Amino acid sequence: MKKTSLAQGSRYYPKRYDFSIEKRNAILDEGLICHVGFVRDSNPVVIPIAYCRIDDTIYLHGSVGSHFFMDMAKGIRLCITVTHLDALIMARSIMNHSMNYRSTVLFGTSRLVTDEKELQDATQAFVDHVIPGRWEDARQPTPKEMQKTTFIAVTIDEWSVKCREHGVGDDEGDLDLPVWAGILPVGLTWQEPVTDHGGSREVEVPDYVLNYRR
Amino acid sequence: MKKTSLAQGSRYYPKRYDFSIEKRNAILDEGLICHVGFVRDSNPVVIPIAYCRIDDTIYLHGSVGSHFFMDMAKGIRLCITVTHLDALIMARSIMNHSMNYRSTVLFGTSRLVTDEKELQDATQAFVDHVIPGRWEDARQPTPKEMQKTTFIAVTIDEWSVKCREHGVGDDEGDLDLPVWAGILPVGLTWQEPVTDHGGSREVEVPDYVLNYRR
Repeated sequence: MKKTSLAQGSRYYPKRYDFSIEKRNAILDEGLICHVGFVRDSNPVVIPIAYCRIDDTIYLHGSVGSHFFMDMAKGIRLCITVTHLDALIMARSIMNHSMNYRSTVLFGTSRLVTDEKELQDATQAFVDHVIPGRWEDARQPTPKEMQKTTFIAVTIDEWSVKCREHGVGDDEGDLDLPVWAGILPVGLTWQEPVTDHGGSREVEVPDYVLNYRR
Repeated sequence: MKKTSLAQGSRYYPKRYDFSIEKRNAILDEGLICHVGFVRDSNPVVIPIAYCRIDDTIYLHGSVGSHFFMDMAKGIRLCITVTHLDALIMARSIMNHSMNYRSTVLFGTSRLVTDEKELQDATQAFVDHVIPGRWEDARQPTPKEMQKTTFIAVTIDEWSVKCREHGVGDDEGDLDLPVWAGILPVGLTWQEPVTDHGGSREVEVPDYVLNYRR
């Protein structure tokens, strides 16, 4: 697995590139939806897809009913990108405004998961990734349901990480302008769970839902 | 401008597709970062980029110093995708778990913005999109700074909207299982602004920062 040459794409911000695999995996493991790019009839297509990671393989969760997803599964090159926005950076000059973010771009070749054991492992890893604790609690899939479960596996063969994680960078000559400057942090907030009352039982909200964080 | 045939890609969830231009624009105008796909040496590349919309044109903000960005500007086909995650949907069975989201996928051909007036308009629209009120307050770009400002314009010629915006959908036979089911809503939360003290003046945090919402 080689680190990608994406960093060579930037003359100005080489310092924003990071090549720590721990950083890459932290970005991946925090995310829920990735944006997957593929080439279809010579044109680019980018689709949001829920995913999970096992070691250096990304599992994309999809539907056999989606032509796009099945096209994506045909051993073709995919680009998988995950981005977290962390802050708006407001400098005294418009030109120095920016955003803090962490992103990773992965490349690999797609493969439809057909092996029963791998499909089972990917399904459980996916549920554990999205909602830790849920797999043991909810009704697990039947063999018939598993036949309808579809994952594309992409073993990462090139990747890069790009982040901006610092404060305001104003030009020296702008520092004394009467303009407020600073950081406006942003993050995902998980709100109060809303219970579904479609069933006959009253079931308490489990702790792993009440305390859900990423 | 035609609506895209993406909806034909799904046999199972045709109802998740929406063709209201108002819905499309609302998704676009709420977002800050899009994921842009293009084809480079026959391979897909997906990059996160900050953007704004003016009518049916998306302006992608980038750097002349990025080879990728300049490759993207060369009159090629781009796919621009914006996704908002709204909730995790927990059904009583694992198979019926889902996520609520709103997404739009746009297609168009890139064009580097070179006209001075269009560049000025795009810059101001971009700042107004990201932080309404900031353009009038911060130091505006000098002509020299404008020369370093780079936007790619993409006039949308195909698009689709796909959303899931409803509650738990369990199979009839699972409704009485002793499993909690419900929705865990999620959204971006803007935190307390952090003032930069690099300048000599104390400037109060402006209202448009204190009350920032999207």
